[in-house]
Amino acid sequence: MTASSPDAPDQGRAAIGRVAVLGVGLIGGSVALAARERLGARVHGWDPDPAVAPRARARGALDVASAGLEEAVDGAEVVVVAAPVPALPAAVAAALGAAPPGCVVTDVGSVKRGVMAAAGADERFVGGHPLAGAEAAGVEHARADLFDGATWYLTPPAGASGILYERLHRLVVALGARPTAIEPDVHDRVIAAVSHLPHVLANVLVAQAAQALGAEEAMPATGPSFRDATRVAGAHPALWAGIYAGNRDALARQVEEAIERLGAVRDALVAGADLEAWQAEAGAQRRDLLEAGLVGRAVRELRVAVPNRPGVIAELALTLGRAGINISDMALSPSPDGRNGVVALWCSAEQAARAAELIGGLGHPVTR
Amino acid sequence: MTASSPDAPDQGRAAIGRVAVLGVGLIGGSVALAARERLGARVHGWDPDPAVAPRARARGALDVASAGLEEAVDGAEVVVVAAPVPALPAAVAAALGAAPPGCVVTDVGSVKRGVMAAAGADERFVGGHPLAGAEAAGVEHARADLFDGATWYLTPPAGASGILYERLHRLVVALGARPTAIEPDVHDRVIAAVSHLPHVLANVLVAQAAQALGAEEAMPATGPSFRDATRVAGAHPALWAGIYAGNRDALARQVEEAIERLGAVRDALVAGADLEAWQAEAGAQRRDLLEAGLVGRAVRELRVAVPNRPGVIAELALTLGRAGINISDMALSPSPDGRNGVVALWCSAEQAARAAELIGGLGHPVTR
Repeated sequence: MTASSPDAPDQGRAAIGRVAVLGVGLIGGSVALAARERLGARVHGWDPDPAVAPRARARGALDVASAGLEEAVDGAEVVVVAAPVPALPAAVAAALGAAPPGCVVTDVGSVKRGVMAAAGADERFVGGHPLAGAEAAGVEHARADLFDGATWYLTPPAGASGILYERLHRLVVALGARPTAIEPDVHDRVIAAVSHLPHVLANVLVAQAAQALGAEEAMPATGPSFRDATRVAGAHPALWAGIYAGNRDALARQVEEAIERLGAVRDALVAGADLEAWQAEAGAQRRDLLEAGLVGRAVRELRVAVPNRPGVIAELALTLGRAGINISDMALSPSPDGRNGVVALWCSAEQAARAAELIGGLGHPVTR
Repeated sequence: MTASSPDAPDQGRAAIGRVAVLGVGLIGGSVALAARERLGARVHGWDPDPAVAPRARARGALDVASAGLEEAVDGAEVVVVAAPVPALPAAVAAALGAAPPGCVVTDVGSVKRGVMAAAGADERFVGGHPLAGAEAAGVEHARADLFDGATWYLTPPAGASGILYERLHRLVVALGARPTAIEPDVHDRVIAAVSHLPHVLANVLVAQAAQALGAEEAMPATGPSFRDATRVAGAHPALWAGIYAGNRDALARQVEEAIERLGAVRDALVAGADLEAWQAEAGAQRRDLLEAGLVGRAVRELRVAVPNRPGVIAELALTLGRAGINISDMALSPSPDGRNGVVALWCSAEQAARAAELIGGLGHPVTR
């Protein structure tokens, strides 16, 4: 029943020939490097700071350092907007204004609702957010392997083009990451808990340690667990102030929840309660969280017949993403008359049955 | 003016020939391994679990696996009690009851007030706490280099014997660590901030991530910063419940302070305030904290004439510890009549003048 083998998922799909990167810092530069090295794509780049794109080209991240945004996106099949969170709405609107009709535009911002609203109903835009980074900013620290194994969230709008979503999914896989579709508001809530709150708590920890130690003149005394717990404290102030601001409602709710949990711990301490069960639960939760990402390596192909209308692929990807099913690769083949199509999806052997069931539930025939 | 050179501080001091370790897990086992390998000491060990000491001996950590506590401490010059925090008061009292008159007894617990109270006015006891550890417990994971570069807090009581304090200081230096004298209540407050609170916050983070992710079925999605921030979450439940309980008042105050700080962050988010200055301050505080431990490598010797009465050495060590001055080594030479003595101290060139000033302030003549 398989027209293409899972070992050769590229069969029958057009290669991604031209990528534009707008904003060539650590993330944009790493996208550019990986797209050139791993995809053989030709990468044009532009940065609002005129000194940056030439540096990125000298570093081998770009084929062409473009003088302007329009010049960079001209002829591109994928445009990646890698601007700071507060700049994203305007940057994505500008990219969509300049990009060709059949081009997918994405971003890499760590907050998604604002930029999705700015892109409106444009079927060419799919939001994105790779869970990757490094302590040092700038294209000088860009690496082609920055995204290896990282979750890369994709937030397709309801009317996203299936062809364009599939192309972006394929780019993300080629960059070494694991694309996971998610609704923007769920993304912002989850990321507030697993990324923005850890940054806030790291800052609180250093402030408190500084006060406790500072009161004793100059005592040098922090161990390795303190260094780990505060590694991200105070990272890139302007960048992170923008992230906090872009997600302020979701983050405020997470902070409030942390306050409630800490209040319970304080009360338990004051009451002399035994915290062993609480400690054990945290250990079990951490194991579950970190193991949830580990799925088997055996890959199964599912073939899904889908009507050729906007939003079908996005709905499918979001449904599987919600269930924790990782789509390791995806290939879309429209029927000759353009009215229907077949999507081939690859996922782990363990998850294939559940995936088929969920897709069946959406009303699409599945074969595997 | 120097009777012994800074390069050969061991000159004229008795070697530590026999060490007893009571409790041969990760920490006790690492003390034993390092004492054998680096100090050439003969190490006797005992553990309340009769299976453990023979395993430690097979692992090369002990010369003798003793059948009982009394047998282990017989003839020891240093006794290291490596029991969990709740067991320490009884274990230290038992060790002091069995140890010979001229033997220094110490512990490695991460809370100090309780054990100091249990040891009472015994001049042979000096509390200790190495800021080192590992995720895996048990003598199987013990390492001779576990303490390299680590701060090792020492809490001498007011009447501590100078000779015994100096011997313990020397052992700690030989194990690769940096001894720092500190009052027990200051220790417990500082450690609540830099160690116990980070463990509490790590637990809160995993609980909150589990809730945020769990609400979306099985979504796998945590990045490297989450793994770092939660590395210690749920560590060794019985051990950590005992630590929390042993320091519950100081920890409850730190938790309350964290709640207040988080309340301010929540209010700033809700008010739409810019958090860039707050983020930048956290970065500066973290740099200051981590750099505070870095002192120059050039070492100066100070020679201090001291009266031979209990508590003098402890007072001196505590005064320098409070000022953040690291005593890299120490040697005590009593005068022939036993009424006075000279302590040679080695500290960094940058800190030598300040150290001399502080010691002068205590009324002791210093030469350097």
